[in-house]
Amino acid sequence: MSDKVIITEVGLRDGLQNQPNPVSTQQKLAMANALINAGVTHLEATSFVHPKLVPQMADAADVLAGLASTSNDLNVSVLVPNMKGYERAKENGVKSVGVVVASTDTFNLKNLNMTTDKAASICQQVIEQAKLDGLATRVYISGACVCPYEGKTPVDVTLGLTEKMIATGADEISISDTVGGGNPQQIIDILTPLVEQFGPERFNLHLHDTRGQALAMAWAGITLGIRRFDSSIGGLGGCPFAPGASGNVATEDIVYMLQEAGLDTGIQLGALKTAVEVSAQATGQSLGGSIYHWMLSQEKLKQDKEARENPCI
Amino acid sequence: MSDKVIITEVGLRDGLQNQPNPVSTQQKLAMANALINAGVTHLEATSFVHPKLVPQMADAADVLAGLASTSNDLNVSVLVPNMKGYERAKENGVKSVGVVVASTDTFNLKNLNMTTDKAASICQQVIEQAKLDGLATRVYISGACVCPYEGKTPVDVTLGLTEKMIATGADEISISDTVGGGNPQQIIDILTPLVEQFGPERFNLHLHDTRGQALAMAWAGITLGIRRFDSSIGGLGGCPFAPGASGNVATEDIVYMLQEAGLDTGIQLGALKTAVEVSAQATGQSLGGSIYHWMLSQEKLKQDKEARENPCI
Repeated sequence: MSDKVIITEVGLRDGLQNQPNPVSTQQKLAMANALINAGVTHLEATSFVHPKLVPQMADAADVLAGLASTSNDLNVSVLVPNMKGYERAKENGVKSVGVVVASTDTFNLKNLNMTTDKAASICQQVIEQAKLDGLATRVYISGACVCPYEGKTPVDVTLGLTEKMIATGADEISISDTVGGGNPQQIIDILTPLVEQFGPERFNLHLHDTRGQALAMAWAGITLGIRRFDSSIGGLGGCPFAPGASGNVATEDIVYMLQEAGLDTGIQLGALKTAVEVSAQATGQSLGGSIYHWMLSQEKLKQDKEARENPCI
Repeated sequence: MSDKVIITEVGLRDGLQNQPNPVSTQQKLAMANALINAGVTHLEATSFVHPKLVPQMADAADVLAGLASTSNDLNVSVLVPNMKGYERAKENGVKSVGVVVASTDTFNLKNLNMTTDKAASICQQVIEQAKLDGLATRVYISGACVCPYEGKTPVDVTLGLTEKMIATGADEISISDTVGGGNPQQIIDILTPLVEQFGPERFNLHLHDTRGQALAMAWAGITLGIRRFDSSIGGLGGCPFAPGASGNVATEDIVYMLQEAGLDTGIQLGALKTAVEVSAQATGQSLGGSIYHWMLSQEKLKQDKEARENPCI
């Protein structure tokens, strides 16, 4: 199995969409630059949703323009809720779009104001058009493990939606534990039949760390050959339509685990520390996963040691 | 493979040995009672070390006497550093003792003031005597993944020590990531050959959560058939001889993961919340793993909802 892992940084979209304080376009680009400097190559940059629903994403076009002038090698994707959002994404030169369908009617109604059937059909519309236009597509199967309103999601529901989206031609499926209520056994139950049928390459895991389970779930994915993960710098985030959800698994935490385990993310851990700090400043939030705090404690140990060894300096 | 998992609560020993504030025998017994109420059946209660080295364990005999009057069904073990500690443990009616050997000379010298060969030979002495006396034995292979002084531990070193202890007759081997510097791939690399040779039953994982890797490492163990884990209520702990190490994986975190994954620990999560609070009060420390904080946030959400629904009450 491949040692290469693709980390898609979703902090600028999933991480920011629920922030209480406005984050300026300039601040978002500073976050993106810090991430690019750390070696991030895949970035979900924003979403083309209605600015009344998600005001933090109102500057989607400006963020994309800023990124276009920053780096040519970046794989930028955006989230679109429907064909209108898709058209705006395409007009703005995006090469990869994400769409969302949740596992239950209640979640789809609360999140997208439509039934699961309707949400799935909109995803299919976007996928079909994107194929005609030559854009790549990713489908988030939201609430794949747990629905915040209906409880544990039956495996068959997640499998059914996934198969439907693959049949329509989705390039990538992101199995999404939107509220961080899943466990590693669920990842095995969901992904084993999918990997058997379709291979591991097209599957991504989008994990929130609300209950500290994200790394164990990611590891369960690794054992099945999954090599694509979403994460959010410093664990930034939470979902406005999913009560109790905290942020995505912190980028520094998953990068650390994977690299220690001998896998190659291409990302430099030390530079992620700076990216956490830039993001904390941009959002006014206290950020940082376990590894950020561990890096801080290591710095402090080193300083204390130097102070002991050189008491007069 | 079995669905039963044995959780050994080590908070009273590993968790308390490094606490700055004295914890009274009565407070320790209050912690033990809260844990027993939650369904904990395996408890490492204390250690027979020199009270000058670890003052928090000076009341070892009193703790054991208190526990003996509390519960008949509890499996109590204690840590002993040498034959003298072993004799004291036996005199105090203990049925199960733990001994420690670390993976490197530097770690053994700092922790036990002896070389690895000497530490291994003392472990063997204790095991042999315990077999004659009919006591059960557990050997901690400390620094099994990482030595805080020498870096990553070669797999062969950990395997060599483990095999030597099994050959001597150790009932249980606790593969111990003492500083929380390991990763799930190391667990696989260490345990795959051991499980192939000896089966999974006699192996225990003792994981610290310094870098947030403990649950992923535990899950790696689960996939190999490991069904024994140490943990510490609320993540209490740290090692006085291992700079930068934080506490063991929190009992509530590992119990949550295993139970959600369909495994049976026999422990009630709700009652662990109380045990975290009793332990926080006893130690004067702010305690709690991810799941403790998640349980708090769920309570708050429920209260807020009730307040919205019953604004006049």
